[in-house]
Amino acid sequence: MTQVYLVGAGPGDPELLTVRAYNLLHEADIILYDSLVDKRILGLARRGATLIDVGKRCGHHSSPQAAICALLVQHGSTGALVVRLKGGDPMIFGRATEEMQALDQAGITYEIVPGITAATAAAATLKISLTQRGVASSVHFLTGHGAQNRMPAHDWVAVVNAGGTLVIYMGGQTAAGIATHFIEAGMPPETPAMAVENASLPTQRNVPGTIATLPSRLENAGCTGPVLLMIGDALYGAESKQISAFLKKTAAKNVAPLRAALKPARSKN
Amino acid sequence: MTQVYLVGAGPGDPELLTVRAYNLLHEADIILYDSLVDKRILGLARRGATLIDVGKRCGHHSSPQAAICALLVQHGSTGALVVRLKGGDPMIFGRATEEMQALDQAGITYEIVPGITAATAAAATLKISLTQRGVASSVHFLTGHGAQNRMPAHDWVAVVNAGGTLVIYMGGQTAAGIATHFIEAGMPPETPAMAVENASLPTQRNVPGTIATLPSRLENAGCTGPVLLMIGDALYGAESKQISAFLKKTAAKNVAPLRAALKPARSKN
Repeated sequence: MTQVYLVGAGPGDPELLTVRAYNLLHEADIILYDSLVDKRILGLARRGATLIDVGKRCGHHSSPQAAICALLVQHGSTGALVVRLKGGDPMIFGRATEEMQALDQAGITYEIVPGITAATAAAATLKISLTQRGVASSVHFLTGHGAQNRMPAHDWVAVVNAGGTLVIYMGGQTAAGIATHFIEAGMPPETPAMAVENASLPTQRNVPGTIATLPSRLENAGCTGPVLLMIGDALYGAESKQISAFLKKTAAKNVAPLRAALKPARSKN
Repeated sequence: MTQVYLVGAGPGDPELLTVRAYNLLHEADIILYDSLVDKRILGLARRGATLIDVGKRCGHHSSPQAAICALLVQHGSTGALVVRLKGGDPMIFGRATEEMQALDQAGITYEIVPGITAATAAAATLKISLTQRGVASSVHFLTGHGAQNRMPAHDWVAVVNAGGTLVIYMGGQTAAGIATHFIEAGMPPETPAMAVENASLPTQRNVPGTIATLPSRLENAGCTGPVLLMIGDALYGAESKQISAFLKKTAAKNVAPLRAALKPARSKN
């Protein structure tokens, strides 16, 4: 019997949980969650579940990963249904490998439940396809920080030449260095770029620009939430689409019945 | 009021639908779906909904995209709640751009609902993180076919040098050519690789190998469903993990209460 579920919480909007994640949150006895997981998602836990904040997962301010692994093994050994809730998808910048190894070594069975990753959630809100025929035949997700919060060690020339839409995760702090590396590697300075803070949340902010102008625009915006950098010709027109979307928001939206269905259905206790 | 929803159906397992997609399927008056969408997912539509198969979306056997766009506009103009259901995520190899443009031109409001993309669903079942510290600082999704079902025109050397985990979508038919290109571009022939057919479905099959051996193994396997090629050092150990997972499957799984929760909740009609 599976003892631990490593579950992707998606980008933040509770409606973007998978049905499986949603159900597991109702069933869980113990939920170990990243600080970045939205409070509305934690609110889906059943009464009596134990919720444990294991810290942020962004390089900074983290609970040491070893401590998280120890907690997982400790609770996973009790027979309780344990959910380890991670922002986004566990297999994309989720540090799942360390946790899976710890569970393997302890002989604890586990299952992975995928989640909506920030890049596709952001693309959906921007109404910009990450791949486009004749424009981007690939999409490349890269980390925005390396070890000890330094710049990541990408082969910048190869990344630029490989083409496709680039999405930099956790790149808010290193945006200026990343932009410099890309431009020095041959990326045209006028390449469209967009920073997206808090993708899918009511607090989402989009900062449009080019790879040359994005760093200063981002600094002016003063983002404090998780930031995604989206770069490439697929982003052409994203800025005008945003304005059009904003104007349409004044019209009523038929989301009420959908929200209602999100209420906890039944509890076993 | 939103008239059309472009909805990601995820990889096939109905439990991997988002809550929002699940709810929209219950509410929809008209559902335009790709042939690849799993029948169990279509079964979530309410009684009385009109379901329209718009063909496969794999280069081959497709309804011409223009015809799909015309259908979308036609139904989107009626005031009905229209769901356009696409396999995976609409913004990753989903041909959403053409459909969004058609809706924009017709003045029809729409919303995009992201879905679990096949790569993360496959990674979850393999228990292999697509990114790993010190192993893969990026993950790159590439199309496996170009225009007219020919080989895609990637810069193979750049893709290899950019590193990270590579995931080729729709690469089942072109695997041999892709492997040749990668090896000629400098990828070590012993690089771990895995082909995954029907990710997340009960019919999922995993074909492990190296970039050199994968094409012949894949041909021997005789895959007929959608195939994902996963390539890179992150795949080390995937084969042994599979065997271990298979042995554990003999133990009972506590999925019954979760499946039960998937039954259609209420219908408005």
